[in-house]
Amino acid sequence: MWDRLWLNARLATMEGDGYGAIPEGAIATQGDRIAWVGRQADLPGAPDRLAAAVEDAGGAWVTPGLIDCHTHLVHGGDRAREFAMRLYGASYEEIARAGGGIVSTVTATRAAAEEELLESARRRLDALTAEGVTTVEIKSGYGLDLATESKMLRVAGRLARDTGIRVRRSFLGAHAVPAEDRDHPDRYLDRVVEEMLPAIVRDGLADAVDAFGETIAFSPAQVERVFRAAQALGLPVKLHADQLSDQDGAALAARFKALSADHLEYTSESGAQAMGRAGTVAVLLPGAYYFLRETQLPPVAAFRRHGVPIALATDNNPGTSPATSLLLMLNMGCTLFRLTPEEALAGVTRNAARALGLAAECGRLAPGLAADFVFWDVADPAELSYRIAFNPCRTVIRAGQPV
Amino acid sequence: MWDRLWLNARLATMEGDGYGAIPEGAIATQGDRIAWVGRQADLPGAPDRLAAAVEDAGGAWVTPGLIDCHTHLVHGGDRAREFAMRLYGASYEEIARAGGGIVSTVTATRAAAEEELLESARRRLDALTAEGVTTVEIKSGYGLDLATESKMLRVAGRLARDTGIRVRRSFLGAHAVPAEDRDHPDRYLDRVVEEMLPAIVRDGLADAVDAFGETIAFSPAQVERVFRAAQALGLPVKLHADQLSDQDGAALAARFKALSADHLEYTSESGAQAMGRAGTVAVLLPGAYYFLRETQLPPVAAFRRHGVPIALATDNNPGTSPATSLLLMLNMGCTLFRLTPEEALAGVTRNAARALGLAAECGRLAPGLAADFVFWDVADPAELSYRIAFNPCRTVIRAGQPV
Ligand SMILES: [Zn+2]
Ligand SMILES: [Zn+2]
Repeated sequence: MWDRLWLNARLATMEGDGYGAIPEGAIATQGDRIAWVGRQADLPGAPDRLAAAVEDAGGAWVTPGLIDCHTHLVHGGDRAREFAMRLYGASYEEIARAGGGIVSTVTATRAAAEEELLESARRRLDALTAEGVTTVEIKSGYGLDLATESKMLRVAGRLARDTGIRVRRSFLGAHAVPAEDRDHPDRYLDRVVEEMLPAIVRDGLADAVDAFGETIAFSPAQVERVFRAAQALGLPVKLHADQLSDQDGAALAARFKALSADHLEYTSESGAQAMGRAGTVAVLLPGAYYFLRETQLPPVAAFRRHGVPIALATDNNPGTSPATSLLLMLNMGCTLFRLTPEEALAGVTRNAARALGLAAECGRLAPGLAADFVFWDVADPAELSYRIAFNPCRTVIRAGQPV
Repeated sequence: MWDRLWLNARLATMEGDGYGAIPEGAIATQGDRIAWVGRQADLPGAPDRLAAAVEDAGGAWVTPGLIDCHTHLVHGGDRAREFAMRLYGASYEEIARAGGGIVSTVTATRAAAEEELLESARRRLDALTAEGVTTVEIKSGYGLDLATESKMLRVAGRLARDTGIRVRRSFLGAHAVPAEDRDHPDRYLDRVVEEMLPAIVRDGLADAVDAFGETIAFSPAQVERVFRAAQALGLPVKLHADQLSDQDGAALAARFKALSADHLEYTSESGAQAMGRAGTVAVLLPGAYYFLRETQLPPVAAFRRHGVPIALATDNNPGTSPATSLLLMLNMGCTLFRLTPEEALAGVTRNAARALGLAAECGRLAPGLAADFVFWDVADPAELSYRIAFNPCRTVIRAGQPV
């Protein structure tokens, strides 16, 4: 017998290419797994005989729990002052002199106690989960020393334990060169590869390794070095690629069979093709595009042509996308990048799961997958993309339990 | 003796040009009014002797209750299907043939029962008030016949009674020409001026009269006709002006001493100058600019030069800005229109009040004004503009009472 069975549901299973819609559907859970999904008419018996508890979904649309697959959720401080300075006309140089930029976040994150980081990240995480997010990726990368990178990843782990949210952790030591190594980037990279990465892996603090490939960050050769070290230790890789210029980051990521390449505004046709062949997910971050007032659009048509799965995420980056609404990213994905509402929803479910190596665990409504799903007060799943900053989340089921 | 006194508050009074900040402040209420605002050190006695209840604000920033001064909050249906069609590549013609566009909202609004309109608008209003909004303007304009325009405005009135939110109602009969008068716009305007407007005024359903001046809506001469009729009946006017082309709408609004001219992407220097002289508020709607992917920016520098007060609003328009977050409009006002965080906050407090003729009633923290204010969990008021879709609202006081 199943634990719970919902009747009268409209299911967006996200199986196949589009919504995988089942208009008159039913869904059942057993423990923390989905036990059955399908047309209500196809249920293998009388509902009361099938499940201990039978509920009426009232015609609500049901989607998989949402997945935010690229965030910098754990960080100290904020960059509101820098945001204001820029609007008052300060130059980048003046802002840097005033202690702004990524340096300020590194300083604040190093200085913050673990409890402080936990508390500030928790408020942001709560905003995400209020919109039906049940899985979040969280990166390190504002420590740039072993102690602080480990602290960030420990906080990410505590968030998972405290909230029950599924958290995937990415070690992003190669996010920037810390001030103390400004003139010796390779010396810093030695530490990342030889000291930090092995220790992070030994302590079980990361599920993947990420890097920022860009002229202002790390070169392709430097990224390769990090990726080789990660793979030698058995961890999959991801890459912040081609955000501000075409570094051929997409092809580099594909060469290492990266789970995802992220941002990708400047990715070329051949980069998209390489990603398609490698099965690397394109994680688009419209919040960063919007916040930085970029004009170069990611090559969505090329991704479609080459069968690259497209995901969407908040970034939740204090410097370039202080966003805490994944639903808003659906709207921005459609409005700014011209994704369809189906693509946008796939981008925070099926494809986001894939970007985290979790395709067999969540992101679709299918038997055996985690029983993470959301009931929405909408007449059509397109409403989730259409509205701007409106939350029609009615109920969240996580690991089979109402949250 | 005062009813309530908060100590240890950081006040953004919004008096003067900027935040009107008082870092170590106190604020007191008496009934539904603000009784005292100032530096805590200047309190005229011991707190316990001054107020029946004394509370510690814990260093929170306090702003006036937010004011959303341009919304189409009451409407039937939604335009999610049209949004999706466009992204699947449908042309405007195909969408129109499928019953899309403003016609679909008019049809849905005419068909909706008053209770239905109330319920759908209430969900949107609740999203606004959760962010500290205490005053909302609501327009008619999706009825385009007396019965439905009156129904919309009655619903707006019921929202005020049901929630305690201050609602200002604008009659927007001149929003579009209804399908039944497609070829006779002046015949429709006859009805607006001779039948609808007098009846709306007689029934006390409107505080102002609005119109949509645009090539696809009403000409300057037609708008003038509506404005003259409004003023003859003693109502102030507002105008949807220069959104898609320069119709000299700003100058027209100024000539009628309009409370506000709204949108204004194409307003000229001379239009801005005229507004400055007339004291007409520029209501900017970055949500519509964003949603329509406009590239023509409103002339913010000209507004500054000519001393035009700038306000920001959600629009909450099902066709062009289905937005229900006023805080997101602060971010969009800064990010897209390059307002400063001070200007953005003034745009949803002091200047928004002025756009509704409520400058002496709300929008600032000053003795005698309504005791509508918000405690925020932020370290700096700029955070309200900096974050994207994050709600740091801690407590709302409305008419002197915690909500
Ligand atoms: Zn990132
Ligand atoms: Zn409007």
